[in-house]
Amino acid sequence: MSTYHPLTVQDAISLVRGIPGHFTPDAQLECKEIGDGNLNLVFHITDRNSDKSIIVKQALPYAKVVGESWPLSLDRARIEREALQVQYRLCPGLAPQVFSYDDDLAITVMEDLSDHTIMRKGLIEGQAYPLFARHIGEFTARTLFYTSDLYLNPQEKKEQVRKFINPDLCKITEDLIFDDPYRFSDNNNYPDYLEDEAKELRENGKLHLEVALLREAFLTRTEALVHGDLHTGSIFVTPESTKVIDPEFAYYGPMGFDLGAIIGNLLLNYASRPGWDAAESEVLGNQERLLRMVSDVWSEFEIRFRKLWDEDARDPLAKAPGYQDAYVAKVLRDACGFAGCKMIRRIVGLSHVADIDTIADVKLREKAQRTALAIGKQLVLFNRTIQSGEDIVRLVKEAEPLKGAVK
Amino acid sequence: MSTYHPLTVQDAISLVRGIPGHFTPDAQLECKEIGDGNLNLVFHITDRNSDKSIIVKQALPYAKVVGESWPLSLDRARIEREALQVQYRLCPGLAPQVFSYDDDLAITVMEDLSDHTIMRKGLIEGQAYPLFARHIGEFTARTLFYTSDLYLNPQEKKEQVRKFINPDLCKITEDLIFDDPYRFSDNNNYPDYLEDEAKELRENGKLHLEVALLREAFLTRTEALVHGDLHTGSIFVTPESTKVIDPEFAYYGPMGFDLGAIIGNLLLNYASRPGWDAAESEVLGNQERLLRMVSDVWSEFEIRFRKLWDEDARDPLAKAPGYQDAYVAKVLRDACGFAGCKMIRRIVGLSHVADIDTIADVKLREKAQRTALAIGKQLVLFNRTIQSGEDIVRLVKEAEPLKGAVK
Repeated sequence: MSTYHPLTVQDAISLVRGIPGHFTPDAQLECKEIGDGNLNLVFHITDRNSDKSIIVKQALPYAKVVGESWPLSLDRARIEREALQVQYRLCPGLAPQVFSYDDDLAITVMEDLSDHTIMRKGLIEGQAYPLFARHIGEFTARTLFYTSDLYLNPQEKKEQVRKFINPDLCKITEDLIFDDPYRFSDNNNYPDYLEDEAKELRENGKLHLEVALLREAFLTRTEALVHGDLHTGSIFVTPESTKVIDPEFAYYGPMGFDLGAIIGNLLLNYASRPGWDAAESEVLGNQERLLRMVSDVWSEFEIRFRKLWDEDARDPLAKAPGYQDAYVAKVLRDACGFAGCKMIRRIVGLSHVADIDTIADVKLREKAQRTALAIGKQLVLFNRTIQSGEDIVRLVKEAEPLKGAVK
Repeated sequence: MSTYHPLTVQDAISLVRGIPGHFTPDAQLECKEIGDGNLNLVFHITDRNSDKSIIVKQALPYAKVVGESWPLSLDRARIEREALQVQYRLCPGLAPQVFSYDDDLAITVMEDLSDHTIMRKGLIEGQAYPLFARHIGEFTARTLFYTSDLYLNPQEKKEQVRKFINPDLCKITEDLIFDDPYRFSDNNNYPDYLEDEAKELRENGKLHLEVALLREAFLTRTEALVHGDLHTGSIFVTPESTKVIDPEFAYYGPMGFDLGAIIGNLLLNYASRPGWDAAESEVLGNQERLLRMVSDVWSEFEIRFRKLWDEDARDPLAKAPGYQDAYVAKVLRDACGFAGCKMIRRIVGLSHVADIDTIADVKLREKAQRTALAIGKQLVLFNRTIQSGEDIVRLVKEAEPLKGAVK
């Protein structure tokens, strides 16, 4: 690691000039640092003489969100790069291609996807993504199935587990999702008017039990190589295309964690709508579409996952009667619980979502926040009771009358 | 590894002479290779001038049981040695002390326990071990609790998971316990008269579902550093003392796996008794004692584990109402299921137990085998329904009328 230093834009340009087969010697390269994340530098490099462009992502040795005081291992750049390579191999249309990397510099050079939009932004603008559920169903089914013991030789899988042990980034999840929101913590961040909700989160024993069980699953279940941070800010979209990016939180964990991240973030957008219980048909149409997307994400995953299991499972007991059903049911319950945890932490925890924080009207914002918390709690409290993707939608609808009143 | 070579008795003597503080320069050392296992050389070295003795254990690069064709990583010697060190640190009275080691030679030099008896041998002779349940309850409670996320910082625990990834030895378990007994396999080994039982094991779908779920737990749940092979042949005993040895199968797995190994092997001894359903009071007394031992092993574990949880848990949600109960209940169910899997494989699988195979009378032996299979299947089939240690005893008793008739 002694050669590590944060790149300048000039460094980034020199670096990509050296990658064979990309830019011609007369390329006129321009470079902008466009990182808006908390953990990395992202250089966007374009050739003015052609339409070619490329991304250089470099991990920083600390988390910017809390200053330089939260050190993070640079090894996460290797983990992210190796996860990208696995995901691209399994789903070439759904993840960026890696062209080059340097583990000492914590750098990955990859496909530029700037013709796509960050899905969170698109959803905030009310865009529809009719192919998204199918795409993400395929991404999750393939990346989770093919990295699990259902398909891999268990010895090979154990080597993958070892390779993707990711303590620093898992700690962020463990603290921000499964710990801080349920106690007094300096990391928490919510307006005074939500103190009643925060208190409830600190004191609701039934909720704590479910969160404890979900946290345990996150800590102990090496089911598959999960993306680990699959919210709508980690997904680039166009109406025709979906690309999953930024798997630096990748590790071997419970399959439901990725599906829960997607569903929870779709529901954060759902909760953010000012007309969540209004009668305007356009708003209602958008809301129905989001709920359908939630159940479609699940069903598109389930259909593909079951097909992969039927066709490609190498687990010697894969055909045991009822095993596939039991396995799928477990993933669904986990997805529901994790979705709820992710919603709750985005309201009271350290890191929020633009879907809700950018609501200008404070009353509408509070309503959205309370709605998100009501849905999140419902999904956590009842995760172990659900049996179908439709049950998630039912829990969402049941949460509506339970949301705290806006004072 | 290039310096590796199997030791001769002379090599072993030279090696221990070099360990400071053990033998005096004038020691008259005698050495015998006493390994009766399948995977290692074991040298027992004594000084004729004193009462001092020591053990040198060396891993072989293959499994003897199937000739030299089953290669095994020598890294398991490091894993075994590191597991011994963890166990001795947590339970100094219940595991042998490590004095020295050489990872290149795959050697561990440790405390000689030859004043103890292998528990399996003692049980076959009808010995009682009134302190055993308390000792093994303490060993399992402490080694499992203190290596889990309940106590360890999750980041530190992940480094332990990495250190104890043990693909070769886990594969033996995966194949011999969770795979071979349920299909046609050259590894299986049973007399012709048990073909009806073997066929049933291959065709019982309900059993396959439970075995699939238990196998999944073995493959994916990194709950704690388990011993991994805690049968009565891995335990040295006297009426006053218990020492757990041979943790070469150690890895991060489900806590119930170790408890299941103990319970399953106690029940194999129970099933081996010719008078299992006879009316002779001495035999009955022994049988009742074995069943009490089974429920005592569980309750001694549970009492200590709950106390450690109450006093030492650092999991931020450890005090969530109902979490400890849910956790303990899961360990119990797993222990019951794993106990059953271990009984079944010892009858039809590759590797048997002396408790049953040394029964001279073939009719009594067949009866013992069928009894063990009936109990094993019952524990597997109903593992997910039980709620107390007494329920295991109940399942054992319910199995009696279900055992196949001796023809």
